[in-house]
Amino acid sequence: MAIKVHGSPMSTATMRVAACLIEKELDFEFVPVDMASGEHKKHPYLSLNPFGQVPAFEDGDLKLFESRAITQYIAHVYADNGYQLILQDPKKMPSMSVWMEVEGQKFEPPATKLTWELGIKPIIGMTTDDAAVKESEAQLSKVLDIYETQLAESKYLGGDSFTLVDLHHIPNIYYLMSSKVKEVFDSRPRVSAWCADILARPAWVKGLEKLQK
Amino acid sequence: MAIKVHGSPMSTATMRVAACLIEKELDFEFVPVDMASGEHKKHPYLSLNPFGQVPAFEDGDLKLFESRAITQYIAHVYADNGYQLILQDPKKMPSMSVWMEVEGQKFEPPATKLTWELGIKPIIGMTTDDAAVKESEAQLSKVLDIYETQLAESKYLGGDSFTLVDLHHIPNIYYLMSSKVKEVFDSRPRVSAWCADILARPAWVKGLEKLQK
Repeated sequence: MAIKVHGSPMSTATMRVAACLIEKELDFEFVPVDMASGEHKKHPYLSLNPFGQVPAFEDGDLKLFESRAITQYIAHVYADNGYQLILQDPKKMPSMSVWMEVEGQKFEPPATKLTWELGIKPIIGMTTDDAAVKESEAQLSKVLDIYETQLAESKYLGGDSFTLVDLHHIPNIYYLMSSKVKEVFDSRPRVSAWCADILARPAWVKGLEKLQK
Repeated sequence: MAIKVHGSPMSTATMRVAACLIEKELDFEFVPVDMASGEHKKHPYLSLNPFGQVPAFEDGDLKLFESRAITQYIAHVYADNGYQLILQDPKKMPSMSVWMEVEGQKFEPPATKLTWELGIKPIIGMTTDDAAVKESEAQLSKVLDIYETQLAESKYLGGDSFTLVDLHHIPNIYYLMSSKVKEVFDSRPRVSAWCADILARPAWVKGLEKLQK
């Protein structure tokens, strides 16, 4: 099999890449990385991702890391496969690019912090830092206020169809919808409907199953 | 004049966009935003950038925000102008894309924190948080260790020529080279040479002059 994803079933970045591959109807081998034993911080894994983080990606001889760079590679190189994750109209690309950056720069920092504190820590037996939760929840609320306004302009965040912009959000939202922060999403009607829509994508559900098998 | 950049001469994100436009030999109008009076948090500015941050960008009727989305727009739409900021070889694009994400996800968080604590706070009369500096300096050191290794593979971070990847780094490095964190860069020979190279780009120097005039 040509495509391999090295990662962890609990990792949002690994989930992001798996969901993208399944949207594009691409088969891949999932190679679990034993993070509990620190496999990701040692060679040979470091030759796949020098930051010692998951995931790492192989497509034949090509090796990539950083989940959003991987999804962009997949969406562009396999443009003709499966679901079209990039807007085809060049006039709509700049706006999609803006919202891609918004996800990475504005949504990701508080969402990842909350996923760690409320989603991952309870699973691995660590204690949640309530002050960190409060601070990140306030940051996330401000971001979601802007999303609520934007989702009145277009059905999805990057435009009128589901794209990489929305896909990049799913893994953190998945964790946070099972936490007390769910209310922050649900109290905003358009954000709430958007979350329900993107979490119901068959490719997302199938990707989770594949990683957790 | 068709292109406008709304921003602040002190803002790294504004500097990033100005440097990009000048690399592409594009003329633009710089519209200062009075951040001291909170102009960026009020209408009409919020219609240009709903996050109330600088910069905002206009190219005729097109309005964009998020500095890295703006530079990507400029580099792609004005591909034939000025200096080529994107690798033309499609086989080299995925690696460039990885290092673009590394800048945004790994370098930016500690570098921006340090720029704020050591570069901006002293100018606006606020007190530096030494604990925050220490934490961010440790994070930045780890990132620069990986840069030092990568710069043995290629002269620039995204490949063999200067690209958007390097350009995105310049504004924070510019601030940090005048701070005590300079040593963190200078103690790594390849990183140090790379910093000197990219800070000497005529377009960077000219962009700073244009914003500060």
